[in-house]
Amino acid sequence: MTASGSRTYVSPHEVTAAWSDAGGDRVVRVVVDAAGGDNAPAEVVRGALQAAGPHIHIVFVGDEPTVRGLLPADAAYVSVVHAADVIGYDEEPAWAARNKTGSSIVVGLKLVHEGEADAFVSAGNTGAVVAGSLLYVRRIKGVQRPAICTVMPCMPTPIAFLDVGANAEYRSEHLRQFAVMGQAFAREVMGMPEPVVGLLSIGEEPTKGTPDVIEAHRLIAADGHIRFYGNVEGRDIMNRVVDVVVTDGFTGNVALKTIEGSARGILGALRQTIDLSAKTKLGGLLLRRDLLRLKHALDPNEFGGAILVGVSAPVIIAHGSSTARGIAQAVRMGRRAVVSELLPSIAAELGAHAPTV
Amino acid sequence: MTASGSRTYVSPHEVTAAWSDAGGDRVVRVVVDAAGGDNAPAEVVRGALQAAGPHIHIVFVGDEPTVRGLLPADAAYVSVVHAADVIGYDEEPAWAARNKTGSSIVVGLKLVHEGEADAFVSAGNTGAVVAGSLLYVRRIKGVQRPAICTVMPCMPTPIAFLDVGANAEYRSEHLRQFAVMGQAFAREVMGMPEPVVGLLSIGEEPTKGTPDVIEAHRLIAADGHIRFYGNVEGRDIMNRVVDVVVTDGFTGNVALKTIEGSARGILGALRQTIDLSAKTKLGGLLLRRDLLRLKHALDPNEFGGAILVGVSAPVIIAHGSSTARGIAQAVRMGRRAVVSELLPSIAAELGAHAPTV
Repeated sequence: MTASGSRTYVSPHEVTAAWSDAGGDRVVRVVVDAAGGDNAPAEVVRGALQAAGPHIHIVFVGDEPTVRGLLPADAAYVSVVHAADVIGYDEEPAWAARNKTGSSIVVGLKLVHEGEADAFVSAGNTGAVVAGSLLYVRRIKGVQRPAICTVMPCMPTPIAFLDVGANAEYRSEHLRQFAVMGQAFAREVMGMPEPVVGLLSIGEEPTKGTPDVIEAHRLIAADGHIRFYGNVEGRDIMNRVVDVVVTDGFTGNVALKTIEGSARGILGALRQTIDLSAKTKLGGLLLRRDLLRLKHALDPNEFGGAILVGVSAPVIIAHGSSTARGIAQAVRMGRRAVVSELLPSIAAELGAHAPTV
Repeated sequence: MTASGSRTYVSPHEVTAAWSDAGGDRVVRVVVDAAGGDNAPAEVVRGALQAAGPHIHIVFVGDEPTVRGLLPADAAYVSVVHAADVIGYDEEPAWAARNKTGSSIVVGLKLVHEGEADAFVSAGNTGAVVAGSLLYVRRIKGVQRPAICTVMPCMPTPIAFLDVGANAEYRSEHLRQFAVMGQAFAREVMGMPEPVVGLLSIGEEPTKGTPDVIEAHRLIAADGHIRFYGNVEGRDIMNRVVDVVVTDGFTGNVALKTIEGSARGILGALRQTIDLSAKTKLGGLLLRRDLLRLKHALDPNEFGGAILVGVSAPVIIAHGSSTARGIAQAVRMGRRAVVSELLPSIAAELGAHAPTV
């Protein structure tokens, strides 16, 4: 936030700038799936190169000649591991992750598992990244289900929102674990000192919701390690009532895409409003710079994507439509997660000494 | 839509104007809960009076002296039935609906059941209206669960969206019934000739979603009476891919409130953007009239609220925060539903001859 007080939103850059500074001189090796995403490989390679530097070494996985053809002659802090195969968007995730062992996703996740790299970034088939992470990177001991935790653009600052799609089915104990992991991510990676968690439901009272949500409310409230606000409703996500919103993967995925669709719909309608007449066009011109900043603040790509929490290395799931900027931010989030206390924190809170439920 | 083509949204007025014309000279008696809603009784009475006329007779239920005190001396087409009690927002709905027999909700619903009125409008405790409707207005034969169907403001025209909260738990067959009822509402009340239905899930493929959603997809696809698009995702709601979106009451309630929160958040940020400087203020001034029209188009209050489909008379659930305008629109929606083929259509499609599943 600037000191003037006239701005009530924080640019994504201000939030993520801290990512580059954390971890001092430590060198982190980030695998980037050059074959995944609507704009792969060109935008993916371009974005990863933007993030590459003395403290971020990029390991591209993909078709080696293609990737090398996209690298400038003087490319530094970059290596390439060949992966002949690709898992497409339409492929059955669990099957593909198990069988397409020559795919960029599987080759990349194995590099992380074998200690050849520290984090993994892909804008490819999300289900295959999740399934592959379970197979090759493995869960942290004590974690029942990993969850996809996204950085959701809100006013004035973003929140952590999970699960946005790793699990379509769940039990109430999973929601308690998501609360623990989301809280750890908000604290260790997003930099919030004492993040407060809300449980998404259809009313504030602990008795509102499905039986699983009501039971999850009880479990989370009883967990002394979670700063629990109580239930929040759909409208509270964007209104930023809490720092972390927890829900199941079906509801979370619907809510995330609903918000993306609403933002796009409203900003689109705004653009059409500006195009109505010479008068409105002039109005739009006067607002142009600030409207772009608003659009920018609402763009989920600016945060690089989501993280799969609960597996034993940072796996970053970038938007399928990521631009170079989105990939660069995803790589930076990966480094931040590696140098942070995210994994030890989750292991400590959900490991052997987890509260009995 | 105007002929110019420059406007890509339709004002709520254009959509709802047809409501007043339908049904010819038929007189419809609408019960209005004068005690329900954040702005009750004054705004509720004011709104109902706006809708009252030769074809809409209002029966207020509430504290009679209070209501009479709010009526002008020459108020026409209006009567008052005394109800000493009120069901508050915090009361347990099922208990209150059964036991608070002197409440405005129970008294009003009984008037409909006894044939003293044709439709019911309340901005009060939604759960109590649903529970009371099940007890006193009763389900249409063949309907397993009524659902709350809302008119969702979208570009360029609104859609029907259900269930937005009548049921936190459900089975797949309920979703098929919601599809039938939502389609009937879109056709008979919203005036769409051949509405197309989408099932809300987390991917387009029929195999995406929870087991119940996957099974519901199969049931809906197998129902020859439903024009089925297939699965839709959260972003497709506002993007208006289909005319009717079907989901369970938990997911629907979260999605509805998420959209309301996003719209409010983005329009709020826009207002702050306009307030930034003299330049942006001038820009905002030039856009003012058209921005207001956009805000208006996105205001769910403009459609009056939601309808409880599946019970044997139109029960309209207005927003708790309804203004007079919202109540007037809710009353008009109630009349439209009474004079339409909504109830016979649902009875025919879900009654004795419903397809075996």
